[in-house]
Amino acid sequence: MGGAAGAAVAGGAAGVDAAARAAASSGIESASREERAAWLEALAAALEADRGELVAIAHRETHLSETRLDGEVTRTAAQLRFFAGVAREGSYLEATLDSPDPTTIPPRPDLRRMLRPLGPVAVFTASNFPFAFSVLGNDTASALAAGCAVVVKAHPGHPELSRRTAGLAVAALASAGAPDGILSLVEGVEAGVALVQHPSIAAVGFTGSVRGGRALFDLACARRAPIPFYGELGSINPVVVTPAAAQERAADLAAGLVGSFTRDGGQYCTKPGLVFAPSDSGFVDALASVLADAPAQRLLTDGMSGAFADGASAFAGRDDVEVIGTVRASDTDVEVAEASSPVVIVVEAATFLASREDFLAECFGPLTVVVGYADSAELSAAVGVLEGSLTATIQHAGDEDVAPLTDALSRIAGRVVFNGWPTGVAIAWAQHHGGSWPSTTASVHTSVGASAIRRFLTPIAYQDAPQSVLPAELQDGNPLRIPRRENGALGA
Amino acid sequence: MGGAAGAAVAGGAAGVDAAARAAASSGIESASREERAAWLEALAAALEADRGELVAIAHRETHLSETRLDGEVTRTAAQLRFFAGVAREGSYLEATLDSPDPTTIPPRPDLRRMLRPLGPVAVFTASNFPFAFSVLGNDTASALAAGCAVVVKAHPGHPELSRRTAGLAVAALASAGAPDGILSLVEGVEAGVALVQHPSIAAVGFTGSVRGGRALFDLACARRAPIPFYGELGSINPVVVTPAAAQERAADLAAGLVGSFTRDGGQYCTKPGLVFAPSDSGFVDALASVLADAPAQRLLTDGMSGAFADGASAFAGRDDVEVIGTVRASDTDVEVAEASSPVVIVVEAATFLASREDFLAECFGPLTVVVGYADSAELSAAVGVLEGSLTATIQHAGDEDVAPLTDALSRIAGRVVFNGWPTGVAIAWAQHHGGSWPSTTASVHTSVGASAIRRFLTPIAYQDAPQSVLPAELQDGNPLRIPRRENGALGA
Repeated sequence: MGGAAGAAVAGGAAGVDAAARAAASSGIESASREERAAWLEALAAALEADRGELVAIAHRETHLSETRLDGEVTRTAAQLRFFAGVAREGSYLEATLDSPDPTTIPPRPDLRRMLRPLGPVAVFTASNFPFAFSVLGNDTASALAAGCAVVVKAHPGHPELSRRTAGLAVAALASAGAPDGILSLVEGVEAGVALVQHPSIAAVGFTGSVRGGRALFDLACARRAPIPFYGELGSINPVVVTPAAAQERAADLAAGLVGSFTRDGGQYCTKPGLVFAPSDSGFVDALASVLADAPAQRLLTDGMSGAFADGASAFAGRDDVEVIGTVRASDTDVEVAEASSPVVIVVEAATFLASREDFLAECFGPLTVVVGYADSAELSAAVGVLEGSLTATIQHAGDEDVAPLTDALSRIAGRVVFNGWPTGVAIAWAQHHGGSWPSTTASVHTSVGASAIRRFLTPIAYQDAPQSVLPAELQDGNPLRIPRRENGALGA
Repeated sequence: MGGAAGAAVAGGAAGVDAAARAAASSGIESASREERAAWLEALAAALEADRGELVAIAHRETHLSETRLDGEVTRTAAQLRFFAGVAREGSYLEATLDSPDPTTIPPRPDLRRMLRPLGPVAVFTASNFPFAFSVLGNDTASALAAGCAVVVKAHPGHPELSRRTAGLAVAALASAGAPDGILSLVEGVEAGVALVQHPSIAAVGFTGSVRGGRALFDLACARRAPIPFYGELGSINPVVVTPAAAQERAADLAAGLVGSFTRDGGQYCTKPGLVFAPSDSGFVDALASVLADAPAQRLLTDGMSGAFADGASAFAGRDDVEVIGTVRASDTDVEVAEASSPVVIVVEAATFLASREDFLAECFGPLTVVVGYADSAELSAAVGVLEGSLTATIQHAGDEDVAPLTDALSRIAGRVVFNGWPTGVAIAWAQHHGGSWPSTTASVHTSVGASAIRRFLTPIAYQDAPQSVLPAELQDGNPLRIPRRENGALGA
């Protein structure tokens, strides 16, 4: 199948134009939900069939462990099958029918509404999940499930893996009978810019940095006809350890936190990067003890290792923090690219509040900031300055009233975790990846969970339409047996 | 109740700040769905109670007929009650529960997801529906139903009515036990700009011109933390008359079209502004005959009358069109403000295609452009250049195959109408107001129909949460009996 790889890769502005035009004229919107579900299953099977080779390439390019990468292939195949199930089930179409009623003001005609594919989607892939948020990741799976063709902008951190995955995907789609043009790959910063500006592109999915995401978001808004930009731009994922939890299980919490913030080099968008813990609880001592045994790890790219060293050095250079762990400066240590050591920065709440902009900036890699608070008033003040985050976590004792804290954190976070850790995002109908700016650019929909499909759909209503022009999902008698709402009542 | 009006109106940047802060601290998000539904019903009752006085003010300010305005009050009350029903029914929350499953990769915890209110909403009201898309219109009704406070930017075309409506609304909400600050009114262009830029505002609903809407959309995108801007910016609402339809019922179609494009001065966002009809069908002659009896009408404001005269004059001054009706120039006719006569511009398809940008511009008021086509190839070419529109209409004979035409029009329109006219938007679960740019800025959701509520909501997922912190809608046993999805299966 490797021979197909070349066909999937486009270069330069001409390549982007060809890819976007091919996506627009692919005819994917005419395929049935069952056909699209079968394509997604074929993609899952193709990933699994080439698992060994793909994991080897990914390991070489990203330095993530083979165990982690193998699990990520499993996860990515599960995501593709999950969206196949979402497409088949059909409730995502929001099929809604109302019968005529001449007595209302104004009179009601026969109205039938459902969602239709929005059009070709540009997908900007992530560095840190070379499978699950990459060429065949959630954005691509949900777009294909919705009936939208996809043009993927490859992440430069794993170019060979991106090409290889695109190649097997194009071949698998062709074998499954899918039309040409529904998936292609482009590379490079200029190609990404041209893609967001291309008139055939109808929406963008993006996972990456605040800086890069904001620049592309601005381009999407500045188009003559603006398009929705669904971006996830970083997250600090605050954790609150209550006094009762710290007293009950400081050692367990320290071990859990270190495991979570150093997992795979701390390169998760859900990495806990800011932890509020009672100052006098012994939690920091427990943390120092665990951290002594945590190994250094090689980050995704040399650029990221350097950025991590710079970020950690900036924190460590302050005279109002305590530093646990080894901080290396990127310009003085030649080995910095090969091994980034985990670091904890400890700061008191008053200092955090006085320099909040410094402490609220994400440091990508194995670093977390522990903010010591004296009492609930200090904790409330500190929580009150938090910005949007994918997750927020509460470590509490069983009988505590954490409702006010839950309320405060649910205003900024997409997922609130209780007595657990935010890394490791399960695939489920009830899952999602949200939170207010900057964790997402469009908080009404996010890239994870079944509703990710909703980003790439737009409603259409038919008024007094002949049966012959209606999609089967809206025809009399519900021939495809999907969940519908008829005259206001839900029912299958 | 008139005494409360003053309290609802804010002026200048300080007034906007006070209104937005009051909205943010109102606590509306803690109210139950039942409470919010009761408030909406109280607003509907208050509108109806003051119907006579409100219609008189509206008639004086807008020149719309009292019959039309009386019907619009009825419609607006029905909209408020419709959204009360949407809030009570509860399926809009998308409540979704998944049980733990340790066998998945990654393992699945207990996950419960629903939608929560996004935060204070800025509502920019329309000129042409002084009730239904104004202070208590669809944007306000859907935002309050969602649990969001509203700051309304009044349209300058009916200031007294806006103040009077806001005053009765604030009094009715207080009587119904609603918290202070959930509805207020600001006035003026500068206040509107300050509102879109205010950090407490979480989303914008807008109905108006492409120019004004685009300027505010750009401000919403340029914020440090951008917010969604749900705008409806104008629409030409194309109509296709097939040869068989023209042969079958030219006179009926002409009467229907004139009734629709001149209805209430042609000041509907769904006014049919572009009609494709076979060149040799006698349809234009039939139209001329009907138009001769259509009266001149006074438009909403003198500014709109002048803009209509300018727009009509620009068409009439071309040497490649035929003009039916009386065109007045705004700078030569002193009576132009008091009576705008309906106008039909007739053009051949080749001319339309050659000057498409001129003919695709909306002319607000009683004017429509009829494009004559020779054959289906010409029709396809003309339809192929259409941009986003709220509606598209097909007038056809019973046995014709209109599936290809439906397919082409459904790509650009939010609602496709068969053998009817697009004006008169029924209130229904299956209704909506969409279409691609410029008819809407964010085509994934629109301001009409039950799903309008979705614009002002954002998801939250709870992971392993204690029952005591969960909203009742997500608790074990479904105590509020709302539609939920549990472990993938829909059910009440």
